[in-house]
Amino acid sequence: MATLCKPAVSVPEHVITMEDTLALARSLHADHPQLPLALRLIENTGVTKRHIVQPIEETLRHPGFEDRNVLYEAEAKARVPEVVRRALDHAELRPADIDMIVYVSCTGFMMPSLTAWMINTMGFPGHTRQLPIAQLGCAAGGAAINRAHDFCRAYPGSNVLIVACEFCSLCYQPTDLGVGSLLSNGLFGDAVAAAVVRGEGGTGITMERNGSHLVPDTTDWIAYSVRATGFHFLLDKRVPTTMEPLAPALRTMADQHGWDATGLDFYIIHAGGPRILDDLSHFLAVPPEAFRFSRGTLTEYGNIASAVVLDAVRRLFDEGAVGDGARGIVAGFGPGITAEMALGRWTSSGGAVSAAMRDRQILTGAGRSPERVS
Amino acid sequence: MATLCKPAVSVPEHVITMEDTLALARSLHADHPQLPLALRLIENTGVTKRHIVQPIEETLRHPGFEDRNVLYEAEAKARVPEVVRRALDHAELRPADIDMIVYVSCTGFMMPSLTAWMINTMGFPGHTRQLPIAQLGCAAGGAAINRAHDFCRAYPGSNVLIVACEFCSLCYQPTDLGVGSLLSNGLFGDAVAAAVVRGEGGTGITMERNGSHLVPDTTDWIAYSVRATGFHFLLDKRVPTTMEPLAPALRTMADQHGWDATGLDFYIIHAGGPRILDDLSHFLAVPPEAFRFSRGTLTEYGNIASAVVLDAVRRLFDEGAVGDGARGIVAGFGPGITAEMALGRWTSSGGAVSAAMRDRQILTGAGRSPERVS
Repeated sequence: MATLCKPAVSVPEHVITMEDTLALARSLHADHPQLPLALRLIENTGVTKRHIVQPIEETLRHPGFEDRNVLYEAEAKARVPEVVRRALDHAELRPADIDMIVYVSCTGFMMPSLTAWMINTMGFPGHTRQLPIAQLGCAAGGAAINRAHDFCRAYPGSNVLIVACEFCSLCYQPTDLGVGSLLSNGLFGDAVAAAVVRGEGGTGITMERNGSHLVPDTTDWIAYSVRATGFHFLLDKRVPTTMEPLAPALRTMADQHGWDATGLDFYIIHAGGPRILDDLSHFLAVPPEAFRFSRGTLTEYGNIASAVVLDAVRRLFDEGAVGDGARGIVAGFGPGITAEMALGRWTSSGGAVSAAMRDRQILTGAGRSPERVS
Repeated sequence: MATLCKPAVSVPEHVITMEDTLALARSLHADHPQLPLALRLIENTGVTKRHIVQPIEETLRHPGFEDRNVLYEAEAKARVPEVVRRALDHAELRPADIDMIVYVSCTGFMMPSLTAWMINTMGFPGHTRQLPIAQLGCAAGGAAINRAHDFCRAYPGSNVLIVACEFCSLCYQPTDLGVGSLLSNGLFGDAVAAAVVRGEGGTGITMERNGSHLVPDTTDWIAYSVRATGFHFLLDKRVPTTMEPLAPALRTMADQHGWDATGLDFYIIHAGGPRILDDLSHFLAVPPEAFRFSRGTLTEYGNIASAVVLDAVRRLFDEGAVGDGARGIVAGFGPGITAEMALGRWTSSGGAVSAAMRDRQILTGAGRSPERVS
């Protein structure tokens, strides 16, 4: 068993609305030959507001890569503990119960990772495994869930804490003037999310299968250029077209599990942008409403990178409409282009109903999963 | 089962000897008030030569963080494939047999990780899991082995490829003049190492248990300062004293497994420096000769960061002196300060003898391992 419990999410106190973003783009890039296109793309995101760690005036200044990293570390230390404590509360666990921390973040770089600081200051045991991942970008939220699932398969009864700490506003690069950059400046937001994957018990999504898929020959479609000024985010205009090859990968994983990717009870999808959600809805033949959790994240917070899937799962919990045994999919998309995908089933109160449903499926031969054969 | 097969290792063609290093230090830092101390520390490393990706004249120039990262990527793409192919040959596997790639490197930063490029160009399946780790420094070699072990526990019969790509010479910072930096300039070397952890079959070290340990309140003893000029390595003079708290962690893990850390058949230890090996020998009451594999790596290649443990394992294979059932320990040390530790047993040809020895131990109650109870 590996149950993804209710995530805790925190967004910073500084808010920038769509109107603010459009006004900024108009004033900062008045002479840009593709300004109308950039404005249209920003409007199309549907991002009504975003939350950022500094006031917008500070955000627009680039104080240098070193200062940005110092700020990243300070903000992470200021904001992560409270979110982690809430995630532990949701899972009804204490720091001493955690066996591994998966910390994912692509918007700042620390060595040692924040995991070491968390162990020193938050009461996690010295033997807690540390798994920091910086290079999977927005796919890292899905990867964190999947590696936590794997760890609980390897060590039944263990518990994994996932932390996604993304301050995308600290990667703003005022000298990047391509349309992709102007769009990104209007799309990404900051957030910290955390969740526990419990090896036994817990209420949430019990993970049954996971998989990864790389879209061939797209490594430079979503990428960082690493420079003296920090990470420069490169977003190719072909990225939104990747749902056509990724939808079959999601279908295949569901088929292998005896599930139909079109008829699931919930969908937690990385809200990279509106076209991602629209296209996946089309290619999976799923009503757009099925992506309401991801759409809610995108609309209210923007693309918060690896934290999107955790915030969307939080919205699934808040809605409270799925019952035991409900089947769903979780998918993070990011650089590679890589999809980190998972299938799981809603389980509450230790999962008695869910287990009964699984037993019935085993008897009928449906829904074969590696979880059940190991 | 999770058997670490024979690693493949490659060091670059440009060589710098201890004499070269001392002469350089004398000429570059003639006026440095602590030059005599720095020279003595460098001499004490016992590093007779190191291999680096560029001629020394180029290495001493800092062309900027961006150019350094471009070079890192080009060198990685030029050098990794051949090493990976040899590692696959050692394990008698093809790219199609690999389920996950763990890529560890702290000396350059790419997003997407080199894993995506490897999948695109080397015949690994699109569903190969990608686990890039950049923030565990020298401990990442041990972490890679341990996460590969975990994955094979979670999915019996799966295979994990580990790649450690470390071009420490690309982190040379000419403006860093502390004694720790001068010592580091004489200590670190470049290397690429790769190995496969086979879930079934294979000859090598069959992993039985792994663990992690963080030395409290030492996060700034080994750390990167991330600046416009790249990663600046900070090495505190207290680092060599950490074997005193780490030796008990190794002992405890061995005790939990029913083994005595003092009486094992082989020791694969991160050769961070000579004092690390001397002290651990002292605190574990193990003869210095037991660390000959790590000492060989340090002497011939310098500290090659996360690649040390893989190169030391390669030397264990080359010596060819351990027999089936021989018990040993693998330990990587790095920032945190973190130890990533593992216990394993030599297995050849599918491990018939080893399995027999394990069965005997089960009957006698010795050597309890989680591998056997799951």
